[in-house]
Amino acid sequence: MKSFLYPKLNPPSFTWVRPEGGSAEASKVHEWIEPLSAASDPEKAKDADFLVVGVPLSRSSISASGASEFPDAFRRAWKGFTTYNLDEDVDLTDMTAVDAGDVPMHVTDIRRCHDNIIAASTALHQHFTKSKICAIGGDHSITAMMVKGLHLARPDEKIGIIQFDTHFDLRDMSDNGPSNGTPMRNLIESGVVDGSNMYNIGLHGFFNTKDLKQYADEKGVNYITLGRARKKGIEATVLECLDALAAKVDTIYLTVDMDVLDIAYAPGVPASTPGGMTTTELLEGVLAAAKHPKVGAMDIVCLDPLKDSAVQPTVKLGTHVFLTFVTGVMLR
Amino acid sequence: MKSFLYPKLNPPSFTWVRPEGGSAEASKVHEWIEPLSAASDPEKAKDADFLVVGVPLSRSSISASGASEFPDAFRRAWKGFTTYNLDEDVDLTDMTAVDAGDVPMHVTDIRRCHDNIIAASTALHQHFTKSKICAIGGDHSITAMMVKGLHLARPDEKIGIIQFDTHFDLRDMSDNGPSNGTPMRNLIESGVVDGSNMYNIGLHGFFNTKDLKQYADEKGVNYITLGRARKKGIEATVLECLDALAAKVDTIYLTVDMDVLDIAYAPGVPASTPGGMTTTELLEGVLAAAKHPKVGAMDIVCLDPLKDSAVQPTVKLGTHVFLTFVTGVMLR
Amino acid sequence: MKSFLYPKLNPPSFTWVRPEGGSAEASKVHEWIEPLSAASDPEKAKDADFLVVGVPLSRSSISASGASEFPDAFRRAWKGFTTYNLDEDVDLTDMTAVDAGDVPMHVTDIRRCHDNIIAASTALHQHFTKSKICAIGGDHSITAMMVKGLHLARPDEKIGIIQFDTHFDLRDMSDNGPSNGTPMRNLIESGVVDGSNMYNIGLHGFFNTKDLKQYADEKGVNYITLGRARKKGIEATVLECLDALAAKVDTIYLTVDMDVLDIAYAPGVPASTPGGMTTTELLEGVLAAAKHPKVGAMDIVCLDPLKDSAVQPTVKLGTHVFLTFVTGVMLR
Amino acid sequence: MKSFLYPKLNPPSFTWVRPEGGSAEASKVHEWIEPLSAASDPEKAKDADFLVVGVPLSRSSISASGASEFPDAFRRAWKGFTTYNLDEDVDLTDMTAVDAGDVPMHVTDIRRCHDNIIAASTALHQHFTKSKICAIGGDHSITAMMVKGLHLARPDEKIGIIQFDTHFDLRDMSDNGPSNGTPMRNLIESGVVDGSNMYNIGLHGFFNTKDLKQYADEKGVNYITLGRARKKGIEATVLECLDALAAKVDTIYLTVDMDVLDIAYAPGVPASTPGGMTTTELLEGVLAAAKHPKVGAMDIVCLDPLKDSAVQPTVKLGTHVFLTFVTGVMLR
Amino acid sequence: MKSFLYPKLNPPSFTWVRPEGGSAEASKVHEWIEPLSAASDPEKAKDADFLVVGVPLSRSSISASGASEFPDAFRRAWKGFTTYNLDEDVDLTDMTAVDAGDVPMHVTDIRRCHDNIIAASTALHQHFTKSKICAIGGDHSITAMMVKGLHLARPDEKIGIIQFDTHFDLRDMSDNGPSNGTPMRNLIESGVVDGSNMYNIGLHGFFNTKDLKQYADEKGVNYITLGRARKKGIEATVLECLDALAAKVDTIYLTVDMDVLDIAYAPGVPASTPGGMTTTELLEGVLAAAKHPKVGAMDIVCLDPLKDSAVQPTVKLGTHVFLTFVTGVMLR
Amino acid sequence: MKSFLYPKLNPPSFTWVRPEGGSAEASKVHEWIEPLSAASDPEKAKDADFLVVGVPLSRSSISASGASEFPDAFRRAWKGFTTYNLDEDVDLTDMTAVDAGDVPMHVTDIRRCHDNIIAASTALHQHFTKSKICAIGGDHSITAMMVKGLHLARPDEKIGIIQFDTHFDLRDMSDNGPSNGTPMRNLIESGVVDGSNMYNIGLHGFFNTKDLKQYADEKGVNYITLGRARKKGIEATVLECLDALAAKVDTIYLTVDMDVLDIAYAPGVPASTPGGMTTTELLEGVLAAAKHPKVGAMDIVCLDPLKDSAVQPTVKLGTHVFLTFVTGVMLR
Repeated sequence: MKSFLYPKLNPPSFTWVRPEGGSAEASKVHEWIEPLSAASDPEKAKDADFLVVGVPLSRSSISASGASEFPDAFRRAWKGFTTYNLDEDVDLTDMTAVDAGDVPMHVTDIRRCHDNIIAASTALHQHFTKSKICAIGGDHSITAMMVKGLHLARPDEKIGIIQFDTHFDLRDMSDNGPSNGTPMRNLIESGVVDGSNMYNIGLHGFFNTKDLKQYADEKGVNYITLGRARKKGIEATVLECLDALAAKVDTIYLTVDMDVLDIAYAPGVPASTPGGMTTTELLEGVLAAAKHPKVGAMDIVCLDPLKDSAVQPTVKLGTHVFLTFVTGVMLR
Repeated sequence: MKSFLYPKLNPPSFTWVRPEGGSAEASKVHEWIEPLSAASDPEKAKDADFLVVGVPLSRSSISASGASEFPDAFRRAWKGFTTYNLDEDVDLTDMTAVDAGDVPMHVTDIRRCHDNIIAASTALHQHFTKSKICAIGGDHSITAMMVKGLHLARPDEKIGIIQFDTHFDLRDMSDNGPSNGTPMRNLIESGVVDGSNMYNIGLHGFFNTKDLKQYADEKGVNYITLGRARKKGIEATVLECLDALAAKVDTIYLTVDMDVLDIAYAPGVPASTPGGMTTTELLEGVLAAAKHPKVGAMDIVCLDPLKDSAVQPTVKLGTHVFLTFVTGVMLR
Repeated sequence: MKSFLYPKLNPPSFTWVRPEGGSAEASKVHEWIEPLSAASDPEKAKDADFLVVGVPLSRSSISASGASEFPDAFRRAWKGFTTYNLDEDVDLTDMTAVDAGDVPMHVTDIRRCHDNIIAASTALHQHFTKSKICAIGGDHSITAMMVKGLHLARPDEKIGIIQFDTHFDLRDMSDNGPSNGTPMRNLIESGVVDGSNMYNIGLHGFFNTKDLKQYADEKGVNYITLGRARKKGIEATVLECLDALAAKVDTIYLTVDMDVLDIAYAPGVPASTPGGMTTTELLEGVLAAAKHPKVGAMDIVCLDPLKDSAVQPTVKLGTHVFLTFVTGVMLR
Repeated sequence: MKSFLYPKLNPPSFTWVRPEGGSAEASKVHEWIEPLSAASDPEKAKDADFLVVGVPLSRSSISASGASEFPDAFRRAWKGFTTYNLDEDVDLTDMTAVDAGDVPMHVTDIRRCHDNIIAASTALHQHFTKSKICAIGGDHSITAMMVKGLHLARPDEKIGIIQFDTHFDLRDMSDNGPSNGTPMRNLIESGVVDGSNMYNIGLHGFFNTKDLKQYADEKGVNYITLGRARKKGIEATVLECLDALAAKVDTIYLTVDMDVLDIAYAPGVPASTPGGMTTTELLEGVLAAAKHPKVGAMDIVCLDPLKDSAVQPTVKLGTHVFLTFVTGVMLR
Repeated sequence: MKSFLYPKLNPPSFTWVRPEGGSAEASKVHEWIEPLSAASDPEKAKDADFLVVGVPLSRSSISASGASEFPDAFRRAWKGFTTYNLDEDVDLTDMTAVDAGDVPMHVTDIRRCHDNIIAASTALHQHFTKSKICAIGGDHSITAMMVKGLHLARPDEKIGIIQFDTHFDLRDMSDNGPSNGTPMRNLIESGVVDGSNMYNIGLHGFFNTKDLKQYADEKGVNYITLGRARKKGIEATVLECLDALAAKVDTIYLTVDMDVLDIAYAPGVPASTPGGMTTTELLEGVLAAAKHPKVGAMDIVCLDPLKDSAVQPTVKLGTHVFLTFVTGVMLR
Repeated sequence: MKSFLYPKLNPPSFTWVRPEGGSAEASKVHEWIEPLSAASDPEKAKDADFLVVGVPLSRSSISASGASEFPDAFRRAWKGFTTYNLDEDVDLTDMTAVDAGDVPMHVTDIRRCHDNIIAASTALHQHFTKSKICAIGGDHSITAMMVKGLHLARPDEKIGIIQFDTHFDLRDMSDNGPSNGTPMRNLIESGVVDGSNMYNIGLHGFFNTKDLKQYADEKGVNYITLGRARKKGIEATVLECLDALAAKVDTIYLTVDMDVLDIAYAPGVPASTPGGMTTTELLEGVLAAAKHPKVGAMDIVCLDPLKDSAVQPTVKLGTHVFLTFVTGVMLR
């Protein structure tokens, strides 16, 4: 089934018991999303509306990170969510989702990990042409690789990015290679995405050096600080960015760095900060983005479940971000 | 004193040392609330403005819960609050409150626990006719029992419910009996409260299945999602519900399921979720409800102190909810 | 496959991905134990050397308990253990093990839960006559039910018990029904096991009332306090008990109440105490017991993973107890 | 260098490695702030725009407190912040800051500790006439001493206070001496600051007794409850207080009691409460205050890093408060 | 009742509900120990075998400490222990115990706190001549005060000390006054106890400076390192010390600094260390000491419940130390 | 000073304030160890008895690890230890120690990190010929690099290894490169150390696969399981290994993988296990090893301070291991 991929994806390390009628009978998320490795009908899987792929890499993080554990924590969290969104009166079972498993990683060769992500992204975008590809990180270095893979799969499309983040992620790769501080610069320097087609929402405080701001300005990267976004309204801000971007690109990639959140809401994101977004603000922003017809792929990164507090608020929130994305797409 | 009750209530397992002048000299909450078992003047106790009763039952919860520990944690938390509400310039010592102790529970016979709650509620409502009866759960299954007791005590009164909750709590009892997922359905099916006289405020996200929403619609249960309540304003929403309800019923019962809160504010409520109410919103809603003259009883449920974080934010918040209710009543 | 059981067992809620060659290729425990619901060869499964069954009941506990979560936590922990025991040079893959799933439980009817356990135990002992049945609790009330089921399956066999415990568990059932404080008394009073065929190892400190000690003496229950066991040596103590017991009974049931441990070793067992067994002592005792040819079934109870500390020392230890039991059987 | 002080300040117990070009090359806060004890140019240090002094006293707290550990935790946290404020496009390296070390404390003579603080404050205000003196507590008792020192250094200036706090801090010193509940009363009774020149922003809930409110009214202390401040807007509230105060006094002292925060944002402040300020509100208020030209000194108190949760949200927030103060001064 | 004391002791801030038949009916510790403030028979209370007094002072600690919270935590923990010691077949209800409440403390005047302790100790030793006075700290500075009070009450008796401790506690008082590092030196320098009548058991590792060891040698302080005590056996070591001491003194005071424990057993004692005593070793030592007829008073110090881990192993252990002391006395 | 090194070591990121008389005046460890970057006398530093070097690499760990944070946590912990060892009556200030700082690491190129470690080890062993080189990891992959560096510095010396470990660390490098599971195989395959010159003490339980045991046997690796070592005595076991090894090699390298500990003693070592060594056992073993004249270098690895519990028992224990090593050397 997955022989089209090189290297092969690892199946999820565990699978939930699913209801007998399949996803149509699901009332919980873990009953709805079908592991690709156990797909009852591989051909139908190809037409899935959503494809989840785990990207368990965080040894590329500047600070020690367990974000590599998020794909599995994310899957375990499905059990705590129903398929029905009450706010929007939408039931996920009207669409289909498959779980492609995880991109295989190497313990000591980070370059190979990144190459595997590019290869997997390319193959997934080529094979699952009808699916929104949702990458579950992992740290932010994976975004550059997922987008490069998208670019390789669809070289003629111009790609734009909506980024929720407390940081520019524009660090110089000559310092420490393609770490989690570099994905946006990586994409600019490799020519895959123009700086002017990047829209960063959520910057604030004392978490970026001045030279990164200057680099952003030079490259035309667009950024709306959290203060300004709040004044205008998060939804309105996102819509404005989408409008501007949609006029310039063919496909929009949404990347959600969970460190955009206030640390009170995200104890499981070590880089989250005092003064960041509230949960409600982030979900509002993601929903608005997901409704846009040009948004074709997304990722969630930098959530370290090993640092989450006991009742796992951050893992639950990361899962809610994904489900909110799905909701937005269904509301198109 | 409490011989009117069958079964007898258990006294609180511990009592605070109280000031010599009695509650009139109190400046902290634990000096103000008088244990009924040690009441200096039982006849006067009968006229207490507020009666607290612990309902330490949570083995009826679907997920393992220590909410049975909240009544004691609640009593221990009194020491951290003064009797003076600065926002409203109200001093609690202008009214009186007694602590009736706890409804006795059985370890392995949940049916008997529920029967005890009904019996206690009936007796308390019959005996303390001037008091607002405040039940401190325990899990949400107790609400059905407290309301049934109220109904038995005052069979001619029509009862309505204001519910702060992330869930409908309308699950089918034929599945697993009268668990914490069922109280509203229990009351509808037993004919004690009409679905149309229930107002649920706070639903949101992916935490209810679609069939429960359909059941709610069939039974005419009113619900205002958190998103809509925020747009209108929490206070305005509550007032609108109270207006509609007051026109239809004689007595309004307020039930506060603490899982209505955002998980960042309520680590001690395992069922709280990302995207729920803030503390400020819940306190605003409770205050508005408490001011209404028809609100005659209330409960606080599903707060598990064993899961609270170190500085006990959730236990303190649950206690604040009670004191805010008291404040509202005093402002009538 | 499992139609012989009434009520049917629930399959485990999740299953690990297993190696392609089956358990023969396993090098980790989660690759070795086969879910019965997915057994490649049901007939062969019948001959499994070990059968694991989850008994997720803890609402019958006197204090609020999440021990119902241990079966799943236990299964998740398999991944952290290899199949090879270095101390004894034994490889588990030389024997076979199946996971029968969980006994179905009811949320509000504890009696029905207990009946289900008896029924499941009876059926498993009848069907898997060659297997050691290992029940993963749950609280200690399940032991009475598992042993009753064994008795129903093999009414002609005399049953004896080796119990590691800080408590007698001889409380009067007329107080609060068959709670976690009662299993030994339950078995004595129902005539299933003679008091004189019970050997309790590990009692110490201020954790039993005097009347329970008197009841134990009346019924001839044997007990070796931890102090005395340490002086003689844990292994020697267990061997002495086994010798005495083997002369009197046909089958020995081993029950490991994890509260026998010192609280420093078992933060996830709320009833563990200062002054209890060390990990090394308990493992030594379990290994000695498992080697005895008459030990035919066992359980592990009262481990609450929700209270375990971050790195899960107690869940790991509970899992190690099971693997040590397996090792002992293999060394016979 | 610091011989002007009696008693001498203790140097910070550790120092960060600084960039070779000095603060001009700094891009992180720990590279920018220069330890006074290692100042390359003592004369230039005298002209520093900001002077940080640790005041590690919290044995004067009513409840057991580890706020004495905040100065060191604060210094360790510098490493997590850049010198560039993105919201305001301000770089801290355009100004200079020195770290004077800590006021020496005595273990068992609290009076001597308080005297040391007064002496240190006097000397610092006399010597560093161009610097904003920023005292890092410690508990709130230090505020009275810092302000008394300021008064001794500049006896002709009239001093006013802006206070962010959940409490009046007007307790009677005859009860328990100059504890953390008394600083404002201490200043009123010693004649150093008029009650009418105190503006308290943030009071709410059940955290002050009625008699303190009456004392505040008698002395003309101004207070704007959090509820009222929110309705008007935090920034507008602060500006209104500053306007009123600036007309009456020569110098304004800003004191930030971190317990003004909601407990969800400040687990490391044991006296924080449900219903307090959000992080965003506090930072907004501090920035507005810092911009006012008459604000000449400040402190941050009652943050206990020993009680903070694992990812240290409160220590980070306390540090952000300081940096926001610096930003406000730079924007004047 | 307690008018003999100046200053008066504070009653415990809360009291447990006791069984109707009084302590004779008790089966749990909280039902056995009678609050002196509520003593049914004050004259009989005077003959109590054990008197508990809380000494909630820890602002005299070198490092920030919440040991002042232990007396209340200790009282709350009683509920988790029965009155029956199974190891020794002893029931506490054969003797009597009263809880005298807490020595009153001042927030900012540590000298006055210490004076209050001396006064309370004197009065208690004078009034309760038949009771073992058990002081529940608080930090180790209280030991000097309790012993001084004993000396004042019985000036003709020679006092010796058995000390379980990782430290000498012989620091120079001229540095920081009578802190928790000084009690033994305080007693030597004040002439209350000869250095040669002090026996310290448990020293080890890198936790004492060399000059303290030299001071100990000069003063003839006896010390048996943990390593040596283990080789000889803890019980044998204690007996040897008692023998030597009993030949020289009239009364032996036992002081248990909980930091003697290995940090794995005592997370709630910040000064506990790797390599300290196990729980079993400490209980063995305390039992041996308590059996000696000359041991007439004791204390337990430096246990900070605010730092204990979730299931409160250290508070439970501290309570067990007290009950073990009681057991030893009963076995005389 | 450090120009002899390529690449240069990073200085420690912070330095403690040291006493004016230098290390001779030290009474705490942080006053004794001198940062090489600030050495008062570089020539004398060359003769230091001990040289500490941080090796902050853990992105080479199979599971997500923050062991890279241990060097800094180790330095911060010095403050909690005196220079005087009471058990052995040894004062560290009789010898000298320098802190060479940290080997520089790269974020995304693990190969380069490993090369840097080899280069640093070589240079340090060449330059500091009189010093015991103590490497503070980091994960166990660094051991292979440190030993290779030693080999390059002294190519004529035969090297043997004493390893405290729960694992063989003999995994195949062709799977995932030189990760933390491979150092011993790495050294065997590269010909730097013969398998027969490796002595592993502490193996136990289900934490190694059978094929690794077979590989160990093939290569003649010596291993003494924890069970056997306990029976013989830890010290005796170590001495026996040293004797055998000393007869065969010129230099002995001691590597302490902290996962050899029981998880109750080492919550900050995620790979520690139930049934491992106690603290006392490990310290006994390290002391015995350090006394041997051929032991010339050592490391401490796999301690992740980010996972340690609140009072940091594991960081303290890791520090104690180092100080115990120093003590052993001083006792030679």
